[in-house]
Amino acid sequence: MTPQAAYDELIKKCKEISVLGSAASILHWDQETYMPKNGVGHRSEQIGLIARMCHEQFVDPKIGELISAAEDSDLTKDPESEAAANLREIRHAYDKETKLPKDLVEALAKTTAQATPAWAEARKKSDFSEFLPWFEKVLDLTLQKAEAFGYEGEPYNALLDIYEPGATVEQVETAFDGLRKELVPLVQAIADARKRPDESIVTRSFDVDKQKIFGESVAAAMGYDFNAGRLDITTHPFCTGIGPGDTRILTRYNPNRLNDALFGTMHEAGHALYEMGLEKEKHFGTPMGESVSLGIHESQSRMWENQVGRSKDFWVYFLPQAQRIFRESLGDVSLDDFYGAINTVKPSYIRVEADEATYNLHIMLRFELERAMTKKEIKPKDMAGEWNKRFKEYLGIEVDKDANGVLQDVHWSSGLIGYFPTYALGNLYAAQFFAQAKKDLPGLQEDFQHGNFSRLLDWLRKNIHHHGQRYRANVLCEKVTGEPLSHKPLMDYMKAKYGEIYGI
Amino acid sequence: MTPQAAYDELIKKCKEISVLGSAASILHWDQETYMPKNGVGHRSEQIGLIARMCHEQFVDPKIGELISAAEDSDLTKDPESEAAANLREIRHAYDKETKLPKDLVEALAKTTAQATPAWAEARKKSDFSEFLPWFEKVLDLTLQKAEAFGYEGEPYNALLDIYEPGATVEQVETAFDGLRKELVPLVQAIADARKRPDESIVTRSFDVDKQKIFGESVAAAMGYDFNAGRLDITTHPFCTGIGPGDTRILTRYNPNRLNDALFGTMHEAGHALYEMGLEKEKHFGTPMGESVSLGIHESQSRMWENQVGRSKDFWVYFLPQAQRIFRESLGDVSLDDFYGAINTVKPSYIRVEADEATYNLHIMLRFELERAMTKKEIKPKDMAGEWNKRFKEYLGIEVDKDANGVLQDVHWSSGLIGYFPTYALGNLYAAQFFAQAKKDLPGLQEDFQHGNFSRLLDWLRKNIHHHGQRYRANVLCEKVTGEPLSHKPLMDYMKAKYGEIYGI
Repeated sequence: MTPQAAYDELIKKCKEISVLGSAASILHWDQETYMPKNGVGHRSEQIGLIARMCHEQFVDPKIGELISAAEDSDLTKDPESEAAANLREIRHAYDKETKLPKDLVEALAKTTAQATPAWAEARKKSDFSEFLPWFEKVLDLTLQKAEAFGYEGEPYNALLDIYEPGATVEQVETAFDGLRKELVPLVQAIADARKRPDESIVTRSFDVDKQKIFGESVAAAMGYDFNAGRLDITTHPFCTGIGPGDTRILTRYNPNRLNDALFGTMHEAGHALYEMGLEKEKHFGTPMGESVSLGIHESQSRMWENQVGRSKDFWVYFLPQAQRIFRESLGDVSLDDFYGAINTVKPSYIRVEADEATYNLHIMLRFELERAMTKKEIKPKDMAGEWNKRFKEYLGIEVDKDANGVLQDVHWSSGLIGYFPTYALGNLYAAQFFAQAKKDLPGLQEDFQHGNFSRLLDWLRKNIHHHGQRYRANVLCEKVTGEPLSHKPLMDYMKAKYGEIYGI
Repeated sequence: MTPQAAYDELIKKCKEISVLGSAASILHWDQETYMPKNGVGHRSEQIGLIARMCHEQFVDPKIGELISAAEDSDLTKDPESEAAANLREIRHAYDKETKLPKDLVEALAKTTAQATPAWAEARKKSDFSEFLPWFEKVLDLTLQKAEAFGYEGEPYNALLDIYEPGATVEQVETAFDGLRKELVPLVQAIADARKRPDESIVTRSFDVDKQKIFGESVAAAMGYDFNAGRLDITTHPFCTGIGPGDTRILTRYNPNRLNDALFGTMHEAGHALYEMGLEKEKHFGTPMGESVSLGIHESQSRMWENQVGRSKDFWVYFLPQAQRIFRESLGDVSLDDFYGAINTVKPSYIRVEADEATYNLHIMLRFELERAMTKKEIKPKDMAGEWNKRFKEYLGIEVDKDANGVLQDVHWSSGLIGYFPTYALGNLYAAQFFAQAKKDLPGLQEDFQHGNFSRLLDWLRKNIHHHGQRYRANVLCEKVTGEPLSHKPLMDYMKAKYGEIYGI
């Protein structure tokens, strides 16, 4: 078999596995939207079966043989070629999936299936000690997973690599350290500022049907194509790229808060624009048709949510529209007051409710604790105490109970250790990309004042989306911005923004 | 391997194939409801792949070996036992699926994929000659399929057996002949009757949202469980049983006709009650958890739609409710007038719009033509002429154009020859079962006057639903009613009903 023939066969198999896997995406979407409640048992059987079939087909030794037959050949001579990128990333995924012993996969599945309801119960009672035995088991199995994958330096690198391929603990640490040094004082200065926006403007009454119409008009203006997607309601908002021509977003509405669904919709539409910008017609089911990493994915959602959606230029155009739709609640509001209201900074316990500035502190805290735990510098049983200590240090408030602290997120109970950093990496990449886009596209933010986002979207498509996984995240960052990832663009952006709003 | 071990392994495999296949049911449901339009290409890849995988897994020689190892054993000693029924029907399906040469399967798939749009185009132009070459090809391949399956008597038996296992052309002919002899004169008498209901009552204005609420309340009263299902809007209404706890119904609304969505919803809910009544928790994925045949399935939908929904007793309870909801359109209507309006008989061209009485004539016409065609007594090129001739004879009206005649249904273009009779078999079984239910449950129709359908549903569950495929349709009919299928119960029912309404 020639390398080319092996490559073609490999790509065919990968595409087929992805087509099957994409059926599970619809099953999941349906589960979170329209599925009748008694369907849940059968649904988990369907999703479980498809996941198992995809896994079995992918770890088939035949796949390994095809990779081997193709990878050391002319096909990979140019490391930036489609074939080279596909082979590099398929190899990476194949090695990962085949390295895990079956016993460990089953133990993880079984343990997390029990740990998640145990966590939910413990959170309800706000009793960390109840979750602790499960937490210890999950950590133990996760460390075994890291050993099975192998790593340089410390185990956390193996975990990080699952969600952010190629990223290292040192890179993350450097970026986070730089950020922490400037962000903690900024948040403190904001807390001490005399000038304060009035957040209550966006906590008036906002009819849910009208919110949906407004959210859809914003998403459409961003470039979200409703012929290739749709917006539905769910409990935990997400975006799902089913396949070519089908990328769906979901949100939830709060009739007494405009921000939640509005910026939630922009966030998910940002993810969706990335999915829609991948060349799926050609590359679906192969790395060249897939997103780079969770961090890069999050950079797209956060850029649209924050750099675009929370900018004053954006609201020059959209506030008058919002005022026509929500006349009673917004009719009397000035642009500056509205802009302040949607950019209020207020340290709070819960990550998912955090504002743009404090959010990253929530993440850094988790990263540090996770890392220390995988290095056995902190024991699970001491996590609640450590959490509360650092929380006070970074955000200036005392955690009142475990449910508002160490027990708040589902991630650890479901085995996602090493995942959190990607949220903050997304914010860092977003700021760095956006700073570059502004340089490359003079007058970009004036476009926003006219509801025009096409130059930004085209720039993102050309520089990021179209590449699929041609480049790893750190390489992509350097290709696009000429610099490695840094905390500076995000801090510059935040200092300028909050400097104006809080008069500091 | 013991017969029991082989049986257990076989059942496990069948269940797994069904779980996978049920993912395609959701993909199809989504395609007909919420899928964005650009998703259609990927969707057909997903459904095609899953269908191919299910087929490949089922025709695996290993399945044949397991059947053989189990079927001639103590397991089948009692032919009505679960194991015997499962083995009988799995054998039947396995033989069918393995008998078709791969070339023929592909030729049929390819030809019908092209014939269907060709038919749609021909219908649009009302030009039968444009569809004719495709019709000839489909018929030729379908006859090859009949040969591959094998049959006693004539090829039509092989085709009928696909949709109505165990039914024979003689049985159908006997029932249809009896029906035709009495039904044609009845329809003629109705056409000549002086007393005529005023159909315009149900063609007033009916708000679509209110129709949905009313339809849901009727379905719920029937016993449709909205925790295990939902009602959505689609172009071509259907019911889909996804799996345990998830059976969905779909309808469409006409703001100027109450009947369409109302009786459509009852029809689909009737199908759904059958699906919900199968013992899927235990038997999903095996014949014991599946419906007997298309004819028996249709008997359940038609009984709820017609014997229940178009009865006067039903409207004793529901007309006052409908009047509260549709005050402007129905406020002034008497029970007798409403009952007449929903039971108007009027010969018309289009099967799917036909009333309860003339509907069966549409079916009989198709059965006769299909059968003659498979016996080569009629050539495809003569079908339009033959159609029009018989249509005049049975329904008393001249067909004005092919689009209103031989071109109206999609079935033939997609290879469904032998399918039509199941619609009329459904009506015959419905009437015969309902007559028995009335005998077994004194005062049953008085229950309807109080919106109470639980005795009927319990009777259907006990006598029909719970059996799955334990009995073939004709055996089931004798078990339940003590008689083979006959046209008499349906004719008795119609004579009584239309006798009153039309004063004949």
